[in-house]
Amino acid sequence: MSENCIFCGIVAGTIPSTQVASDDRAIAFMDINPATRGHLLVIPRTHSTDLREASAEDLTAATLLAQSLVARVIERLDADGANLLSCIGADAWQSVFHTHLHVIPRYKDDPLQLPWHPTSGDLEEINATAAKLS
Amino acid sequence: MSENCIFCGIVAGTIPSTQVASDDRAIAFMDINPATRGHLLVIPRTHSTDLREASAEDLTAATLLAQSLVARVIERLDADGANLLSCIGADAWQSVFHTHLHVIPRYKDDPLQLPWHPTSGDLEEINATAAKLS
Repeated sequence: MSENCIFCGIVAGTIPSTQVASDDRAIAFMDINPATRGHLLVIPRTHSTDLREASAEDLTAATLLAQSLVARVIERLDADGANLLSCIGADAWQSVFHTHLHVIPRYKDDPLQLPWHPTSGDLEEINATAAKLS
Repeated sequence: MSENCIFCGIVAGTIPSTQVASDDRAIAFMDINPATRGHLLVIPRTHSTDLREASAEDLTAATLLAQSLVARVIERLDADGANLLSCIGADAWQSVFHTHLHVIPRYKDDPLQLPWHPTSGDLEEINATAAKLS
């Protein structure tokens, strides 16, 4: 655990999040600034600054959890596809320095462009979406 | 191997590519329509349409190879970061239907936006960059 790391706080439960899946090494929770409906973050429980520093075991666990969630958003949210994205470094749009994989559901003709401009989502809608994914 | 799959052709060697790394399950080669200098694609040797269909072993191998290449582009190309991206479905910008991970080096203040508009890169420059990464 790294002090002052918001994602370590989410792992520890001292910072609230809406989790939808987890295993021994990784957890998945809703992004509260979603780029699209159902945007998820998958993180290893153990702190690393970015994907370069994650252990093979942690990166594998996070990737396989993300893989299962890609299938789940397509099945349960009627998404038409998804992007898996990781940002390594501030110059690559990383803003939280704990390794994370974005799972971004995609919808036909959605207007997504990256970088997106994070704005707070509607928490009721996020929670309703999370319920479908849990 | 899937007939008419360009990436299966690259794995088989019947379609040329500039490979920079490989292991038993995955290969990495230069994207000839680079979004930034050093843009790489990492693919499992075994055909799957997209990340959902890849076996855990293949996805793990491709991810760990991509992880090593993220470190390599930052070290050897003086990149300032990188993005790891996978597109699942045409509505998520997938254009070749064989599972692949993009490793996109990032440079301070580069103008990258996604989706990028693929245009042919300068093959001499791509080959010179590949030599640094091999």
